Amino acid sequence: MSKPPAPRTRLRRMHEKAACDRGTLHAILDAMPLAHVGHLVDGAPVVTPTLQWRTGDRIYWHGSSASRMVKAALAAEVCVTVSCVDGMVLARSGLEHSVAFRSAMVFGRATMLTDPEAKAEALRQMMERLFPGRWESLRPMTAQELKATAVLSLPLDEASAKIGGPEPEDPPEDPAWPVWAGHLPMATATGAPVPAAGLAPGLAVPDYLTRFRWG
Amino acid sequence: MSKPPAPRTRLRRMHEKAACDRGTLHAILDAMPLAHVGHLVDGAPVVTPTLQWRTGDRIYWHGSSASRMVKAALAAEVCVTVSCVDGMVLARSGLEHSVAFRSAMVFGRATMLTDPEAKAEALRQMMERLFPGRWESLRPMTAQELKATAVLSLPLDEASAKIGGPEPEDPPEDPAWPVWAGHLPMATATGAPVPAAGLAPGLAVPDYLTRFRWG
Repeated sequence: MSKPPAPRTRLRRMHEKAACDRGTLHAILDAMPLAHVGHLVDGAPVVTPTLQWRTGDRIYWHGSSASRMVKAALAAEVCVTVSCVDGMVLARSGLEHSVAFRSAMVFGRATMLTDPEAKAEALRQMMERLFPGRWESLRPMTAQELKATAVLSLPLDEASAKIGGPEPEDPPEDPAWPVWAGHLPMATATGAPVPAAGLAPGLAVPDYLTRFRWG
Repeated sequence: MSKPPAPRTRLRRMHEKAACDRGTLHAILDAMPLAHVGHLVDGAPVVTPTLQWRTGDRIYWHGSSASRMVKAALAAEVCVTVSCVDGMVLARSGLEHSVAFRSAMVFGRATMLTDPEAKAEALRQMMERLFPGRWESLRPMTAQELKATAVLSLPLDEASAKIGGPEPEDPPEDPAWPVWAGHLPMATATGAPVPAAGLAPGLAVPDYLTRFRWG
């Protein structure tokens, strides 16, 4: 974030805070694996949902080596946006309604990991981020699987973070209006893990599923 | 969807179903207000989180009339992507892990509503989608607020929907591997509504907050 860009876009018209410190940016990226990657295909934007993970000052995502998405992501600048919705904000007038959110945007030219060991390590880190300790318990990745998978990376050099708080900010004359105002907190909840059809008996639900957090 | 495009992008490498019927598309758009709009700014993609709502065969979103996002969205083709994450899918090998999801992508040239009555009606429908009945209880929108708000719209002519199921689809030799496999269901939960600071006493929490659904 040596050259933080001026905020280019706005989720809310008002009340938001540009949060430009690196710790805030990292915290948002670490909290929400879901990312929307914007890239150019035939000159038009295409927005692809995928999972991102951060290691140090870079984010990573992966895809099929043969996919159009991967080719497009390498051919021109991309924008990776991560959004956490924390609640709905209800004001006394319609246009002051908003979303309580944390979001991050990362811009730049993506690069592809080419060294097989670096790729494998990045994929291990993705799993470690989601389900710590699971990687070592899995059927090992084959060379063919690794070859068929592209791992893309983007530095956090040009990135911004924004946080929108939950409190409605009505104009001074509005709070007397007789309507309920406030916010409705929202968060991602997990249900009970569902075993795969035909799962061998005696395999306990791993502890990391209990600790899983999203957002 | 008279000309459904070939799927341009993939959230999962395998196992997904292109769901091209209009009912599925509508259901995804209606379930998830959060959208990520991809547009071009200085020739590069920018992905902006915002809320969308559907009326008939169009989706709508809004922003500040003065915003760069609105200008960019009108100047070239956009891509609006809506993603619902329904769970994490844990397979016996790392690269078969995936996300249970429903997603929709809408492509095209956005238009801006210019008729004030049509704009106001669209904004009322947005509120109706989120909090049915609330619009009529609010401090009425002013002409200035309406003027400062741009409402954009995109037809569903070029759109696609995809659904990824929750069952891991390991290669035939993998299910014997001794690791827990299955899926972790995920959904958005709401907490207890929090009144705004200084909310006048005697204003009950509206019923629509109890019925609020997201995803």
